[in-house]
Amino acid sequence: VTEPLSYEAAGVDAAAAERFVEAIGPIVRSTHGDAVIAHPSHFAGLIRPDFPAMGDPLIAATCDGVGTKVLLATEPAHYEGLGRDLVAMNVNDLLPLGARPLLFLDYLAVGKLDAERLEAVVRGVAAACREAHCALLGGETAEMPDVYSGEEIEMAGFAAGLVDAARLPDPATIRPGDAVLALPSTGLHSNGFSLARKALLDRGAFHLDTTLPGLEATLGDTLRIPTAIYVDQVLALLESVGFKAAAHITGGGLLGRAAAMLPVDLGVRIDPNSYARPPIFDLIAAVGDVEPDEMAATFNMGLGFVAIVDPERTADVEGWLRVGEVIEGGGVYLGYASR
Amino acid sequence: VTEPLSYEAAGVDAAAAERFVEAIGPIVRSTHGDAVIAHPSHFAGLIRPDFPAMGDPLIAATCDGVGTKVLLATEPAHYEGLGRDLVAMNVNDLLPLGARPLLFLDYLAVGKLDAERLEAVVRGVAAACREAHCALLGGETAEMPDVYSGEEIEMAGFAAGLVDAARLPDPATIRPGDAVLALPSTGLHSNGFSLARKALLDRGAFHLDTTLPGLEATLGDTLRIPTAIYVDQVLALLESVGFKAAAHITGGGLLGRAAAMLPVDLGVRIDPNSYARPPIFDLIAAVGDVEPDEMAATFNMGLGFVAIVDPERTADVEGWLRVGEVIEGGGVYLGYASR
Repeated sequence: VTEPLSYEAAGVDAAAAERFVEAIGPIVRSTHGDAVIAHPSHFAGLIRPDFPAMGDPLIAATCDGVGTKVLLATEPAHYEGLGRDLVAMNVNDLLPLGARPLLFLDYLAVGKLDAERLEAVVRGVAAACREAHCALLGGETAEMPDVYSGEEIEMAGFAAGLVDAARLPDPATIRPGDAVLALPSTGLHSNGFSLARKALLDRGAFHLDTTLPGLEATLGDTLRIPTAIYVDQVLALLESVGFKAAAHITGGGLLGRAAAMLPVDLGVRIDPNSYARPPIFDLIAAVGDVEPDEMAATFNMGLGFVAIVDPERTADVEGWLRVGEVIEGGGVYLGYASR
Repeated sequence: VTEPLSYEAAGVDAAAAERFVEAIGPIVRSTHGDAVIAHPSHFAGLIRPDFPAMGDPLIAATCDGVGTKVLLATEPAHYEGLGRDLVAMNVNDLLPLGARPLLFLDYLAVGKLDAERLEAVVRGVAAACREAHCALLGGETAEMPDVYSGEEIEMAGFAAGLVDAARLPDPATIRPGDAVLALPSTGLHSNGFSLARKALLDRGAFHLDTTLPGLEATLGDTLRIPTAIYVDQVLALLESVGFKAAAHITGGGLLGRAAAMLPVDLGVRIDPNSYARPPIFDLIAAVGDVEPDEMAATFNMGLGFVAIVDPERTADVEGWLRVGEVIEGGGVYLGYASR
């Protein structure tokens, strides 16, 4: 005798999903200011943007994940960190346009709905949304047996923000001699983990709980440090002296991302001695025998966000490092690497 | 002698990613009207929404994937269909709020960047965005070796739209006797595939290329029919007679989704003989021995979108089926199933 089939017998637990949505309700609402509109229909989130303050409001939108950094997570605290990474990777991508984050949504896919782990992700997402001053307006958690195993998780995020068209940064105004300002990264952030794991865990055969000279925490904890959220610092720079172009240093690394923000006929020279490079980068390079150009085209090398500013106004800037200047001709020069 | 490590040696082909982004450029731009703003910074997409036409503009936003339907795709045409599913699942979720889709972004994650397959997805996404009158404003394609095998793909989508606060549907105005209008689904759409596969492929041991009595195409092609996009029909209903509440019939099925749009003290009775139920649903129920309530709490049962309308105004409505009415007391009654 075969039992009647059900959605639950097919591996999908709708009741657990309902309990999860119930449990995260207060966490999600902790990110909601007055702008979020309650509506009895739960098909989509609703928010009232503050347009009247803008002459010509534009919406900026982006989506991103956290790559293979998910493979390093085993404990709830690690998943909370991944939630933070997910928000950071998206809201930081709005900032080069001068856009103020407004809303965020997360998509989580798992093989089995494991409430403890998923709630940790949402806690991290919500804390990061509060720091970025954007509402966690919704999300989707998909239980997909036959696609993911019990431990696997996929995470994608989406952020939208607002910018007044009159205040869009204009890279055409960049001139040789302009100052390159930067904000330090907290470590690898969420890029280059396929290479980092290959170098350190495969070739180096290090364990994640190893302590190594120069690292302040275990190797695993060093790699897992969440991505910095630059919203306050970038919006403050925009309000004070403004910037002509900016880059969130993600895939493509410091070389690729710094090059992408420039007109083709201009380059930047960054002085590697102008800031402290976290030791994890030199460790990856040494253990993996990774060439300097490859390192700087994959990792942020210690700088998570870069902006081009009028050199005569940098005296008014607080909290940013002056790491280099704009030069004639294309290319990014980093002392030990260039492209 | 060990070779120096590189990002490519770690399984990530940055050059292939650049070629892919280049190749899909014209496809993506085919969805861009005048509202999309070109900016030399490529960190996020920019769009100018038509706010001046609205007194109190709200942004509606949602995200969703296509679940385990991805497991049925093997050919480019199937992936094109999945791209269409991804857009449909998101833009249709904006419609119950009366929101007009404005922008869409896609997140694709794969083990190996396979341009033919991914371009097919983007073609489907772009065609669906054109049909939904929204811009494909950006996207992320993540190559994640060690997470996905060569054949696997994960897809998540994100859509945002606009609605004037004064025109939000108000479920508090629903009265017993109101008409339930519906739009037919094209088949399973993108929900319930874990159960459908379990019933048909495991228990029934059918092959996807089987032809079965009652099905107009092979079993695989019947299951893969892309999700309908309801934007034009719902916005036309909104313009003509309006609606008091609406539901996109997705996870939770016809029973769950129809119940979710109603105040707790009201229900709906849907006449199962008022529309033609695609035979695939009866096939799943028979082969999987799935109870009627479980079927209707998992699948759309042939109705992809439902709206509650003033019964005296339904004479003016074109292209919608009148399938039932609002009744006193909670619950959804479907003739053969209820909740």
